[in-house]
Amino acid sequence: MPSSDRAARRDALRELVRDREADALLVTDLLNVRYLTGFTGSNAALLLSAHDSASDESGTVVCTDGRYVTQVAEQVPDLAAVIDRAGPVRLLQDAGGARGGQTVGFESHVVSVDEHQAWSDAASSLSLQRMPRLVEKLRMIKDESEIDALRRACGVADAALAALIERGGISAGRTEKQVAIDLEFLMLELGAHAISFETIVAAGAHSAVPHHRPTGAVLEQGDLVKLDFGAEVDGYHSDMTRTYVLGTPADWQRELYALVERSQAAGRAAVLPGADVQAVDGAARSVIVDAGHGDKFLHGLGHGVGLEIHEAPGIGATGTGTLLCGAAVTVEPGVYFSGRGGVRIEDTLIVRENEPELLTLTSKEFTVL
Amino acid sequence: MPSSDRAARRDALRELVRDREADALLVTDLLNVRYLTGFTGSNAALLLSAHDSASDESGTVVCTDGRYVTQVAEQVPDLAAVIDRAGPVRLLQDAGGARGGQTVGFESHVVSVDEHQAWSDAASSLSLQRMPRLVEKLRMIKDESEIDALRRACGVADAALAALIERGGISAGRTEKQVAIDLEFLMLELGAHAISFETIVAAGAHSAVPHHRPTGAVLEQGDLVKLDFGAEVDGYHSDMTRTYVLGTPADWQRELYALVERSQAAGRAAVLPGADVQAVDGAARSVIVDAGHGDKFLHGLGHGVGLEIHEAPGIGATGTGTLLCGAAVTVEPGVYFSGRGGVRIEDTLIVRENEPELLTLTSKEFTVL
Repeated sequence: MPSSDRAARRDALRELVRDREADALLVTDLLNVRYLTGFTGSNAALLLSAHDSASDESGTVVCTDGRYVTQVAEQVPDLAAVIDRAGPVRLLQDAGGARGGQTVGFESHVVSVDEHQAWSDAASSLSLQRMPRLVEKLRMIKDESEIDALRRACGVADAALAALIERGGISAGRTEKQVAIDLEFLMLELGAHAISFETIVAAGAHSAVPHHRPTGAVLEQGDLVKLDFGAEVDGYHSDMTRTYVLGTPADWQRELYALVERSQAAGRAAVLPGADVQAVDGAARSVIVDAGHGDKFLHGLGHGVGLEIHEAPGIGATGTGTLLCGAAVTVEPGVYFSGRGGVRIEDTLIVRENEPELLTLTSKEFTVL
Repeated sequence: MPSSDRAARRDALRELVRDREADALLVTDLLNVRYLTGFTGSNAALLLSAHDSASDESGTVVCTDGRYVTQVAEQVPDLAAVIDRAGPVRLLQDAGGARGGQTVGFESHVVSVDEHQAWSDAASSLSLQRMPRLVEKLRMIKDESEIDALRRACGVADAALAALIERGGISAGRTEKQVAIDLEFLMLELGAHAISFETIVAAGAHSAVPHHRPTGAVLEQGDLVKLDFGAEVDGYHSDMTRTYVLGTPADWQRELYALVERSQAAGRAAVLPGADVQAVDGAARSVIVDAGHGDKFLHGLGHGVGLEIHEAPGIGATGTGTLLCGAAVTVEPGVYFSGRGGVRIEDTLIVRENEPELLTLTSKEFTVL
């Protein structure tokens, strides 16, 4: 991605910091540092000066340790870098030394009580101020380079599932674990940089457990088989779920599937700019409640997705806020009959003006394997 | 593992809490909850009453949300469970309601400034007290069931590397990424529940980058090829590094390898109960310094390993503390000639009375592939 995109993000963040009348923001969440600078090392902090501008970033400094001297120079050519293991303390001390009495915001939602104490002790001339989730607020709205990464991540997951089905990889006699390993291997082979999260493959009664970890259990004819998985590409995560039936489906399985399919379609249709997240959840949930199974839809409808597999906004019955154009979210209703089986259908999509853009392209038709 | 082992851990922790004159400890780090209860869900908190005993744990409660009703009952049959999304707040309110004026410790090294604020607001009748790293202190010393899991994790990594070499998987013409995917696939096939961390495969000049991410770069005859990888089994992580030469080795590669091999052996020999971690680092580092390459050993000698891939104790030039019998650590010196190539050799081992127990069994002899 062009580094000018990152510079634009930093400048948008400066405005949020200035709104809060601070001189700088100390960013220590690694994903936030990555989002703002492109640096992917495992030790990083960024001091973003609110007095800088897009054309003069001389007060904005990234810090990492000796392992990443070369990497930080390559990945962040446009900012000054300090090499020091004690990143945040060093940046705060430098800021305090340069100009006492400054107000510096910090990410109070991720900074621990002990870190905060150590920083306060080390930079007593500064006023440290809680400024949670400023970068996360920016991250909610994806720019086109981010959407492109998400599209490629979803494409890898789609292609891996298609390849697995094509080769008969989801079939009676195989274990949940074998299926999960194959799916992960295919994603990596097809271009995933990593898997998004531990793949869920849940067969038979296990499909009624929302977050089932694959076991040695053998897939059998007549089973519902639920697969929840995703690929990471350039740091961005896809997330999808499909549920299939092996062999001859029972009527209850067809009916259950049709119900979840209707609910998922209703949820997707409600994904529009300005929609309240509770209303989006409600649009999908009411379909299931009306069918008398509200108590078997055990989780929220969906969540934001991006540099993290779960990020803002949460879409659930207790969520707050509205969807914004450019947000990336999942829609994933599920109905679970304990001891018998469950169905979940999940896509990743982008909030767009008139209707959402679907990034998960695998068919959602009832499918017997 | 027998649940009595977990009960013993909880009882050891109670003693640490009583030493600090508190009534209870709120454990919110997920790995710490897992260590103490066996619960593996993604939302969990534990309130451990210091007034309980191994025979009466009625004041000790685990909390999770609706997704994990079945799982928590299965995994934690020996403790009361509360189902509530607002885990820590709920546990603190229950504790405050039961008996006002109590002192409750919390894990201030992982609890965020915002969480702490919310807890203080919600449970104002309690005195919240910083108690960082109590569980981590216990976790440093592994019991035999943990060592067994580590041994199996190391065994999987050893076996995967052997299988990869056997099939000619590390050879000129293949890319770093292909080698990494194969190695990860083999580990999963051979019983890993997950990979420990993103596999490092670094060829040629890339081997001089301590933490190189595999690329499409092609392995060539004459390259040093560094592989750093591990398997997770039952939650425990192995960590190993081997460096090979493809084709005909150059003299500088042989010499470099011999140097790192000597350093690593010296480091392992220093791993004894009571040894100061700086001295252990120094034992390996001095070999490299004496050879005139101290500036090319860019990181610490090693780290603890267990439920996390990096945990206490850190073994480095700036570390503090001593090694304890039963600790699991890595020993991994490396020397990196920027632009040419580097060698790192790493084992996972257990601190034992007379000499460490080596869990990584792959040969460290100079090997040409």
